[in-house]
Amino acid sequence: MKKVEDYVTTIPNFPKEGIMFRDITSVLEDKDGFKLAIDKMQEKVVEMKPDVIAGTESRGFIFGTPIAYNLNKGFVLIRKEGKLPRQTIKESYDLEYGSATVEIHSDSIKKGQRVVIIDDLIATGGTLKACINLVEKLGGVVAGVVLLIELVDLKGREFLKGYNVESIIKYKGE
Amino acid sequence: MKKVEDYVTTIPNFPKEGIMFRDITSVLEDKDGFKLAIDKMQEKVVEMKPDVIAGTESRGFIFGTPIAYNLNKGFVLIRKEGKLPRQTIKESYDLEYGSATVEIHSDSIKKGQRVVIIDDLIATGGTLKACINLVEKLGGVVAGVVLLIELVDLKGREFLKGYNVESIIKYKGE
Repeated sequence: MKKVEDYVTTIPNFPKEGIMFRDITSVLEDKDGFKLAIDKMQEKVVEMKPDVIAGTESRGFIFGTPIAYNLNKGFVLIRKEGKLPRQTIKESYDLEYGSATVEIHSDSIKKGQRVVIIDDLIATGGTLKACINLVEKLGGVVAGVVLLIELVDLKGREFLKGYNVESIIKYKGE
Repeated sequence: MKKVEDYVTTIPNFPKEGIMFRDITSVLEDKDGFKLAIDKMQEKVVEMKPDVIAGTESRGFIFGTPIAYNLNKGFVLIRKEGKLPRQTIKESYDLEYGSATVEIHSDSIKKGQRVVIIDDLIATGGTLKACINLVEKLGGVVAGVVLLIELVDLKGREFLKGYNVESIIKYKGE
């Protein structure tokens, strides 16, 4: 019986020297890998008792929408700046070089709603912290964050201290 | 009983004067709207008897992955240039100003596989034609293209003549 990590492709030195890139497209492309990834993530989401699922552009959409559909929840997009057509709120965060901004529709989450945020991977946690801030600014309760992959050495989990962070595959020491 | 079009928000003059922007985020954000959209699209996909589902970045991911999961198929990403980590093939297409390029992993589709391409919307059909070309270059058979929304006046369906194009909501004359 294959595990979900058996479907991940590791590409050494991409996008630059010294980085072990974890490629999730090979998980998606395999029907068994894809089903296993969604099912494992969904188990974690269910425990968090969400009212709504949020996903980050664009790989959070891939994993978030099947889970939202299966649990009969609405799905809220957290997108890069300038892509959402109605009124939004924004949150900026630092990158290695420069910064980035994410947006959410102002009316997409109601006060007190329990929100689970989905993404493919957590590294330093910068993007996810910005997403958490957006949800909380709208009065939502972050019930948890669920990732397929966690790069343990980058300590994203510590950066998101106080939140319920669950990942399916943990890579460390490489 | 609400129809799926009742969940679409229309935003006049976005992103510029004279454009009636069809906002699908309000479909996703409503659990009933989201389920209805996926179920209607999935009915069309099933008739096309796909071996694999492909989705275009990034709104094609939103609708494509729940359908791939439900039908127990793999999901292939068609992405904007520079985002896929393994060997790819590319296809460029014209935009109103300039051009754009989409990419697919070279090994993501096997010869003779029936592929259904999913996106949120068809306008002139330029992006979708590029996606069709990618699938065919890899030896895949385009079993069909399924969209939530079709902007009929922009004649994307004619541009994709010879292919099985199915849409759930058709807007015309505005």
